[in-house]
Amino acid sequence: MDKTNHTEFFEDIDRCSGRYVEELCDFLRIPGVSSDSGRGRAMEESAEWILEKLRALDFRGGIHFAGGSPIVMARQEYSRSAPTLLIYGHYDVQPEDPLDEWKSPPFEPTLRDGAIYARGANDDKGQFYTYLKALETYKRIRGVIPLNLIVLAEGEEEIGSKSLMHFLNQKKDQLHSDIFLVSDSSMLSKDIPAVTCGFRGIVSFEITLQTMAKDLHSGLFGGIALNAAEVLSDLLAKLKDSGSGKILVPGFYEDVRPVAEQERRAMEQLNYDEAAVAKSLGMTKLSGERGYSAMERKSIRPTLDINGMWSGFTGEGSKTVIPARASAKISARLVPDQQPDLIFQCFKDFVAGHLPAGVKADVRYLFGAMPVLAEIDDPNVRLAAESIEEGFGVAPAFIRSGGTIHIISEIKNTLKIPSMLILGWGRPENGSHSPNEHFYISDFQKAVRSLCVLFDKLSGHEEKR
Amino acid sequence: MDKTNHTEFFEDIDRCSGRYVEELCDFLRIPGVSSDSGRGRAMEESAEWILEKLRALDFRGGIHFAGGSPIVMARQEYSRSAPTLLIYGHYDVQPEDPLDEWKSPPFEPTLRDGAIYARGANDDKGQFYTYLKALETYKRIRGVIPLNLIVLAEGEEEIGSKSLMHFLNQKKDQLHSDIFLVSDSSMLSKDIPAVTCGFRGIVSFEITLQTMAKDLHSGLFGGIALNAAEVLSDLLAKLKDSGSGKILVPGFYEDVRPVAEQERRAMEQLNYDEAAVAKSLGMTKLSGERGYSAMERKSIRPTLDINGMWSGFTGEGSKTVIPARASAKISARLVPDQQPDLIFQCFKDFVAGHLPAGVKADVRYLFGAMPVLAEIDDPNVRLAAESIEEGFGVAPAFIRSGGTIHIISEIKNTLKIPSMLILGWGRPENGSHSPNEHFYISDFQKAVRSLCVLFDKLSGHEEKR
Repeated sequence: MDKTNHTEFFEDIDRCSGRYVEELCDFLRIPGVSSDSGRGRAMEESAEWILEKLRALDFRGGIHFAGGSPIVMARQEYSRSAPTLLIYGHYDVQPEDPLDEWKSPPFEPTLRDGAIYARGANDDKGQFYTYLKALETYKRIRGVIPLNLIVLAEGEEEIGSKSLMHFLNQKKDQLHSDIFLVSDSSMLSKDIPAVTCGFRGIVSFEITLQTMAKDLHSGLFGGIALNAAEVLSDLLAKLKDSGSGKILVPGFYEDVRPVAEQERRAMEQLNYDEAAVAKSLGMTKLSGERGYSAMERKSIRPTLDINGMWSGFTGEGSKTVIPARASAKISARLVPDQQPDLIFQCFKDFVAGHLPAGVKADVRYLFGAMPVLAEIDDPNVRLAAESIEEGFGVAPAFIRSGGTIHIISEIKNTLKIPSMLILGWGRPENGSHSPNEHFYISDFQKAVRSLCVLFDKLSGHEEKR
Repeated sequence: MDKTNHTEFFEDIDRCSGRYVEELCDFLRIPGVSSDSGRGRAMEESAEWILEKLRALDFRGGIHFAGGSPIVMARQEYSRSAPTLLIYGHYDVQPEDPLDEWKSPPFEPTLRDGAIYARGANDDKGQFYTYLKALETYKRIRGVIPLNLIVLAEGEEEIGSKSLMHFLNQKKDQLHSDIFLVSDSSMLSKDIPAVTCGFRGIVSFEITLQTMAKDLHSGLFGGIALNAAEVLSDLLAKLKDSGSGKILVPGFYEDVRPVAEQERRAMEQLNYDEAAVAKSLGMTKLSGERGYSAMERKSIRPTLDINGMWSGFTGEGSKTVIPARASAKISARLVPDQQPDLIFQCFKDFVAGHLPAGVKADVRYLFGAMPVLAEIDDPNVRLAAESIEEGFGVAPAFIRSGGTIHIISEIKNTLKIPSMLILGWGRPENGSHSPNEHFYISDFQKAVRSLCVLFDKLSGHEEKR
């Protein structure tokens, strides 16, 4: 592989570095917190800002509304024979609180120790912005970008992407693509970039049990009343085998796709330091399902967690009450090919089958998202890895994320895009959703480099030389 | 048994009925809610009101302070050879809320359907007041009360009786008594009065488990993090066998005194309608320990209840968090001869023995009270039963209450009083602690009658005739 012809990209990126960073700071100054309904103007401003940058690159497009925050959709057509890339990003950010834990104000981007500190620097304004600058550098160097490109940016990712999901269904025909590109994930570690080949899905639900008409006095009724907290504890304890960590809900593992030995071996080679991770989490050792490594348990295996539970008196002191109601919020992370709806039904059946006579159970679906997985032999994944190796100077790890990015599965499944490239430019410790969120300028530059190389590879520029 | 010599009592009570009720209404008008720190004046007024009534009966006494609400202690000495009765009552009442559920204002006593409606009418002003009027009638008819009497009234029963417990220890020598009399309990049903021969004790504690340094993201850490809610559910589920209802904590049943067959048979004869009770509580059937009737389970058997539990996210919607902390409030009702401190230690040991490695548990004692039991062959209990049969025209049931009146066990144990007479004048449905609390005038009269007869019997008046 001749790398020399990418030198022009790299030099351009170095040359423009100061301006690129300043421009990103402008973007980060817009306080687009999507959970705050009073930030409508910031949402519009963000969308306009993105659209303006794309128009400067000769994209045609506009701002669309599908109920909530504006959606930017812009495109450039090159030729019928070129592949079509769909680049997705979100411009909304998490709330900035707790404010007093920020060393510099969240919406006044500050450069410190080689990084830009601001809310959204990493998630997802900074990572998304790498695409805009890669396109700019590419166009400047090569004169033309020989790809069909669609850029889709939304402002509701942090609150569920409802408008975009609606929009996807409306505009399905216009969004037909070959390759789906998104950077809203993480590198493996501070030195090792990553190609994320899959995300776990999720199903989230709430159980409320009612054993009696109302709470009763434990002196007068203790011994004859059925305690809802006790029934719930018994039920929750039956969901999982505490020894092996296996989930005991019939049907839960039925659709789990076996993982290739090759992928398990690759994971093993990442040398995930379980003891160090346990220590950093304040645990003596990591927990979980027997028969799998920690790396496997947190990525390729499904899980079950009680996210919250409550019953009876929870104030200060004591109240000798026998609770009539008890509730729990539960979620399961799903792996291919588990389906949220079917898994929810398994839980409902399990609950119904394990209740004492006369107990009423309300099991309510909260939300779900499908797991996603890149096709294992996708040549584009290989091209992405080669590009990243050039851009970062180190080969990326292929990982599966244990988390769920709802909109990624929505886009992939709704638009049936065959190729999925999820490239993490942020370090795990960059503080997405936390105070002092930041993005390293060097990572930003390496990401832009990688993307320029990738555009060359995807357009067949290298082969044509 | 010649009942005719009690006719004079009964006639006097009938004659004075109007005045007795009016006077009780005056007492009920004083809004002595002990949990409201702004009601200090009402507390003083209540204590003064009681002391004035006692002084009119030639009692000597005064008002004492031991930290909180005033304590009334007054006495009359008859002779060294006469038995000494300690009559206990409390003048403080529960808060009146929810106010809008009262048909008439809680501190404006109202007569309706033969009952006095007011906060405290039943618990405990009305029931305690029967003693004051029985003493008045008795003295008027017999000229003298041939008993040594101590009346002890406090104003903190509804908030834990702390001052009185302090006072008991200070004045132990002055409070030496032979018979302890209190009416702060219930009749068995609206037609059947009751002699309560025992109360369950209690131990109440709080458990907090911590599995990790902080809550974690269920996507990124699901599979390796130890969920505190899960560990707590497992632990709570192990406390009791859900099939048999037996408490599985080693040592829990060790000191439980076997119940005499005679007492179990007597309970059986009460014909407690389990199906009707279940229906009224909104249950298909009553729950509890196998091998015991409902009446036994709620009175002579110890119990265990989760009074509250909480962990993780309990707000609206969902948050995919793995909780690092989970808590529960737990209480056990105890029977003779279980001791709160020893039982607490059993639970602590059980918790310590059932935790996964690395989990921290904080098990905190909240409060405890000893169970109490009347001596089974106490001749005074028989005399009380005979007196009640005369006063009410129906024999009382001998019952054990499943509840706990902390101060009763404190008084009995601190002062080591051999005889305990707990006589319930209020009907179970009289609404203690609830809106529209009331006390039937006919029950009030029958109680005063019963007490006059009892004073005759305890003083040996009948034998002397």
